[in-house]
Amino acid sequence: RISWISDIIVVVSPENIETMKTIIEKYGHKRVTVVEGGITRHRSIFNGLKIFAENEFSGHLLQKPEVVVIHDAVRPFVEEDIVSKVVMAAKEHGAAGAIRPLVSTVIASAADGCLDHSLERARYRASEMPQAFLFDIIYEAYQQCTDYDLDYGTECLHLALKYCKTNAKLVEGTADLWKVTYKRDLYAAESIVKDNLSQQVCVITTGKESLAQVGFLLPESLKNQIKVEAISVSLSKNDSRLQNIISGQCYNFVCVNDKRYAIQEIQELVDMLEKSNIPLLCPVVLISVHLDISENNSFSIGMEDLTTIKKFARETKKKNILVYGLLIQYK
Amino acid sequence: RISWISDIIVVVSPENIETMKTIIEKYGHKRVTVVEGGITRHRSIFNGLKIFAENEFSGHLLQKPEVVVIHDAVRPFVEEDIVSKVVMAAKEHGAAGAIRPLVSTVIASAADGCLDHSLERARYRASEMPQAFLFDIIYEAYQQCTDYDLDYGTECLHLALKYCKTNAKLVEGTADLWKVTYKRDLYAAESIVKDNLSQQVCVITTGKESLAQVGFLLPESLKNQIKVEAISVSLSKNDSRLQNIISGQCYNFVCVNDKRYAIQEIQELVDMLEKSNIPLLCPVVLISVHLDISENNSFSIGMEDLTTIKKFARETKKKNILVYGLLIQYK
Repeated sequence: RISWISDIIVVVSPENIETMKTIIEKYGHKRVTVVEGGITRHRSIFNGLKIFAENEFSGHLLQKPEVVVIHDAVRPFVEEDIVSKVVMAAKEHGAAGAIRPLVSTVIASAADGCLDHSLERARYRASEMPQAFLFDIIYEAYQQCTDYDLDYGTECLHLALKYCKTNAKLVEGTADLWKVTYKRDLYAAESIVKDNLSQQVCVITTGKESLAQVGFLLPESLKNQIKVEAISVSLSKNDSRLQNIISGQCYNFVCVNDKRYAIQEIQELVDMLEKSNIPLLCPVVLISVHLDISENNSFSIGMEDLTTIKKFARETKKKNILVYGLLIQYK
Repeated sequence: RISWISDIIVVVSPENIETMKTIIEKYGHKRVTVVEGGITRHRSIFNGLKIFAENEFSGHLLQKPEVVVIHDAVRPFVEEDIVSKVVMAAKEHGAAGAIRPLVSTVIASAADGCLDHSLERARYRASEMPQAFLFDIIYEAYQQCTDYDLDYGTECLHLALKYCKTNAKLVEGTADLWKVTYKRDLYAAESIVKDNLSQQVCVITTGKESLAQVGFLLPESLKNQIKVEAISVSLSKNDSRLQNIISGQCYNFVCVNDKRYAIQEIQELVDMLEKSNIPLLCPVVLISVHLDISENNSFSIGMEDLTTIKKFARETKKKNILVYGLLIQYK
């Protein structure tokens, strides 16, 4: 998704390596190398770094990067913006990491299970991911660190500070960087995915004069609520603007036409969507609106067309594309 | 909900006091006094405490409690068990509070926005709510504390330590004590409510010999998955076991009967549920199973009964009780 990342190393526990490889193949992920994890967080990260530096560790050595980004898979909502910020800060300072304000006060407990002291919340931050480092700094830090660090440590910024005297630059992250930890977090994550998917709709009108007004008014009335792309194209031609909208992760389409047998046009759009692979991740919604303003429009013919679309929709559903037909007759 | 709590003080911002009073009335909450909040957390809590101690602050002075529990409304999933634990610990130690392990490492930032140092995660805890105090201790602490404390402080345990030399006992809390902070947390909260509601089902068989086996086998096959209460009663009598199950917040009922016109019996159960007020909070699901094992059972008569139940269900839906009919004919 982020074009300037040259390699992605996924560190996975031995028992999940095959599953991970299946996922990578299924979703056509590129630039990904799977590496076996260790028994602690730091040992896993170290394994991931070694693939750039140690010949004996891997058959094919990857080219050593200038900057490496470390991220947790349990933080799925990472925006390009924050990755870019930590990378730029790491280039300048040697190390950088995302932070968030503390939600609760942090306290130290004494040996007897009683409060020892509490920290002033405003002076401290939660250290989150992603973090970025000059490769040579973080790799040096991991090579120097003790078995105790590798077994009990959790903070990469701490290693860079302790072993390479590098004070990481701290970058304010977004709330969505939280760790998906509990069962409830899965529901929260689902809500964010759904929210993101419903941010944008593409209204397509297929060329005819009579639809120009609809093609203008519908987006106008929608755009107060969501981001709307409106284009007027013939779907039978391979339109590059439409291609761009699809590859920009648009999951909602309204296709307005004024003639019967719009199935062919919808089929063109379904083909484009299928080729784009975006329905693999989430269902795409496609509403085919037949606006019938002819003098002699007939309800029964309209219903016939809807039945055709219903049959068509049953097929496209298997491809994770949900087609709906809407008939508007106006005399 | 917790019988040994004598008074509940709800501290609300001035503009929300009327809304809060409406909620309290609508859901029939008892023992609740609404108090106007201050401009900071500590000022609000102090206002809440004053109602037990300062005559001029309130028209009717409430009886001063031995122990007071302080809780955040943004942590709705607090179990009686943890409240009880912090109260008992406060009785012994003067103060007590719930804690959770840290999810992220906590770091201190320097003035230049760089990492100063990171805390060893295992030595620290997140301070959560509820907290409990001997009333005299926490009230004394609030009376002593400075305007700076009242305006910028956030931690009650800190006040008890600083002004009354009371080291609070720390009690491990459950994961569900987290603060509902972001929009995504509302979805997470909804998932927990739904999860809790679907934990328990009550299977009611209405007395007849022929149903004894069903009344036994159905709960047996369900109990691997959820908590099942199985009782055999005549719903026309006011059964105390059934009353107890309802007031124990059971939201799912399966009612098995073997005769036509079970509507009267279902009506009895609907009446009991309505009186209990539990459908006010969440929808109650009630499945009426008509098990027809008579030699001369008739499909058309069975369907007639289901139609009657459908009509009935339309009415009960307005009371937030969802009735479903299931007809099982066996020859």
